[in-house]
This record gives sequence, structure tokens and C-alpha cells, in this order.
Amino acid sequence: MQNYKMTISYDGTNYRGWQRLKDDVKSIQFKIERVLSELYQYDIKIIGSGRTDAGVHAMSQIANFHADSTHTTEDIYKYLNHYLPEDIAVINIEIVDEKFHSRFNVLEKHYEYKIWNGIHSSVFERKTSYWMKDSLSIDKMKEAAKLLIGKHDFLGFSTKSKKKNTIRDIKNIKISNEGSMIIIDIYGDGFLYNMVRIIVGTLIEIGQSKKDIDVIQQIFTSGIREDAGYTVPGKGLCLVNVTYN
Amino acid sequence: MQNYKMTISYDGTNYRGWQRLKDDVKSIQFKIERVLSELYQYDIKIIGSGRTDAGVHAMSQIANFHADSTHTTEDIYKYLNHYLPEDIAVINIEIVDEKFHSRFNVLEKHYEYKIWNGIHSSVFERKTSYWMKDSLSIDKMKEAAKLLIGKHDFLGFSTKSKKKNTIRDIKNIKISNEGSMIIIDIYGDGFLYNMVRIIVGTLIEIGQSKKDIDVIQQIFTSGIREDAGYTVPGKGLCLVNVTYN
Repeated sequence: MQNYKMTISYDGTNYRGWQRLKDDVKSIQFKIERVLSELYQYDIKIIGSGRTDAGVHAMSQIANFHADSTHTTEDIYKYLNHYLPEDIAVINIEIVDEKFHSRFNVLEKHYEYKIWNGIHSSVFERKTSYWMKDSLSIDKMKEAAKLLIGKHDFLGFSTKSKKKNTIRDIKNIKISNEGSMIIIDIYGDGFLYNMVRIIVGTLIEIGQSKKDIDVIQQIFTSGIREDAGYTVPGKGLCLVNVTYN
Repeated sequence: MQNYKMTISYDGTNYRGWQRLKDDVKSIQFKIERVLSELYQYDIKIIGSGRTDAGVHAMSQIANFHADSTHTTEDIYKYLNHYLPEDIAVINIEIVDEKFHSRFNVLEKHYEYKIWNGIHSSVFERKTSYWMKDSLSIDKMKEAAKLLIGKHDFLGFSTKSKKKNTIRDIKNIKISNEGSMIIIDIYGDGFLYNMVRIIVGTLIEIGQSKKDIDVIQQIFTSGIREDAGYTVPGKGLCLVNVTYN
């Protein structure tokens, strides 16, 4: 048996998310597993680096699977890209050490959130960005972002977290803008459920002056979801990269 | 009465094209005229710089219309962008000389055609590029493109042309590639029906070595549509800019 590592790009617009849930065919995981199982003529299960929610995109999602060595990586690559729908692409596939695990071995993840802060629509990025018409103070958002960097208990920045350990290490947050597009890049060792989207919602409310910068420390202290901002839509979110040792 | 010049951006995926044809509601022109007529409470007709076909996009299409001075440009801009669908945006509106005519006064048009020349899908540009899997010689395409530059009779590069004058002046053609994306930029004083798409189809067939570079001169001489390459799909085409005096 070989262990194959895939790099996958997808437009999440038409999916319920990465993860296959029972009989749900509208997941990216299901689409890939179905093609692989067709190729191997037996059930192939793939392990993703983590789930992405409905509407969330990926430039480079990572997944691995175990299978016999009947097919070359070149053949698997071509077969997958021939049969996958046009909104999912496998951009790389390679044989890795048998111990490699897409989820357990993650060192860092890089997410990007795009906010279109204009009066007219972002015609070509309307499905990959969140349209926010209110004027935002990017300076305030940048100041608040600094307070999020580092090891903190992000319980208040997550929904329904069943995880015992809610401490995460945010390595960096960069906020930039090109014209009306505001781009928030977040790098961390891991993220709780909805954590990136709640962080962005909180930064937006700070940028609107609906919330004060002090709220960040308050959420860390209270751990109460309601103290944080709203959960921004999934369509503005993209998993850019996953780093391993 | 004032003469208003609008700069319009649109994703043509869901439209039959720019031009309103009788009762066809699936045209970009119709969508804009309907919102403007609602604002002014009388029929407003807009004049585009030229039609774009079904599926063709625009970064900066230009259109003008005449109306009374009841509304400021700021108000018209906000009203249009509030009521237009998300795949159409008015990015600028200004008052111009009463003699300005979007079609008659065109000096130069810049079109861009995107070819995705990869094995896997271009996930995020699949609706704005044409997926071509065969390997292409960009060098040959560049060489052929040089022969197209200048004043020539482009009759053979058009379909059903009713125009008496089929001579057009192509100012420049630039072919570049970033990874698997091949971008063809064409600048000219005007284009016949389907001319850009047939030029690109001909360049592709030359890049595939299905046609020889000499075919360009042959098409100029014969004026026969069948001597040229196929008409590539509209979705890869985008009107980038229209220049006026």
C-alpha cells in the first residue's frame, strides 16, 4: 500500500463544504472519493487537513489516502482531473511516507478572507468575497488584529466548540487593501469551528466603530461567543495553504 | 438634457450578450435601461460602444444616454448599483459633451482572450477562460500574431459580415502566459462580428500545428471564412477598455 498526498483547489460555491456527511453528495470529499473508488474499483477514503464549511473555497487543501500501487501518480492525477467537476481540481499528487496524516501533521494553516468594500458590486469576485458597503476603518482593524496574534483561548471566537482545548496560536494576521478589496490573511497552528469567520466579523464591527478595540481582551477573558462579532459568510473565505513539517 | 457616459463592468456568463433584442430580458443593455427608466420614470435608451456576444465579459464597456438633469451623477451611480444584479456594475458615470457618442467616437478597443492550457481545471477562472488541453506552441502563435498587426481586410476572420468595409486596423497583439494561463491582448480600431474569437481560434490551430503560419496571408487574400480557424467560446473573451479622443 502507498500513501498518496493530494493538493486540491476548489470553488466551494456549489458545495455544502469539504466533509462528506452520510449520504450527502454535495461535499468535495465525496466527489473526490467517488472518482478514486471508481479508478481503484474498491472504496477509497480520503483524509483532509480539516473541514471547510459550505461556500468556503480552497487554493490548496491537502488530503491523503492509502491505496495499492496499481496506478502511477501521473495516471491518478489525469484520471481525477478528467472525471472531477470543473469546480474541483487536483493540482498535485505525490507518494509520501506511510506515516503522513493530512490532519494530525498540520504545522500551520493560512486562510484568507476577502471583503469587497465598495458601492458597486465586485462583478468578477462576487462569489469569492463578501460585499460590505459600510465604510470601515482599516487602521482600527489592523490595531485590533495585533491583539489577536499569539497564544490565546479562542473559545469566545467559536461556535459550539466541543473541543476540550480551545487554545490556539495565531502566528500572524495581515490586513491589506487593493482598491475596494480588503484582504485579511490569517496564519495559525489550527482554528476552531467558525473561528476565522467570527474573527473577521469582530474586526468588521471594530472597523465600523460598533465595537471598541478593548473587546478583543474582553472576549478572551469571558469566553462568551456573544461578546464577539457576527459570523461573516463562508463565500469570502479561502484556505490558501497548509504547511507540514 | 444632459449626456451621461457610463463605464460598465459585467460578468457575461448569465446573459445572451450586451444588446437588447426585442423582448429579450437576458441582455445587459436591457437590465441597465430598465433601472434607468425606473429612476427617471420615462424610457431611457442607452448606446453601447458595441455589442458583446453571449457569455462575453467586460471590465470597461462604455455606454451613454441622454436624460434631464433631475438627478446628480452620484445619485444615478448609487441607484444603478443598488438595483442592478450583482453581475453588472456601473463603475463610473460622468456628464460629457452633448455630441459624445459611445459607438461613433471609438478610437480603439482592447479585448483580452484567456486560454487555460492545463490538465486540471482553472477552478476560479473556469467561467472567464477557455479550457484547451492540447499543448500549444506559444512561439508559433506569437509569430502568427505579428502578421495580423496592421491594416488588413479581415473579411475571412468574420461571420456573416454585412459591413461593406471589412478593413480594420489591428494596432497590437500581445500574447503572454502565467503558469497555464495564456492571455491574448488585442488592440484595434474596431472589430467585425466574431473577429476576435476567430483570430484566437486561428492562432490556436497554428499553435497546435494544425495550420501553418502562412494561413494568415492566405485568409487575407481569399477572404473565405472556412480558411480560418474555429470560433472559440465567448466565455474566454473580455472587453477590457474602450478609448476615445
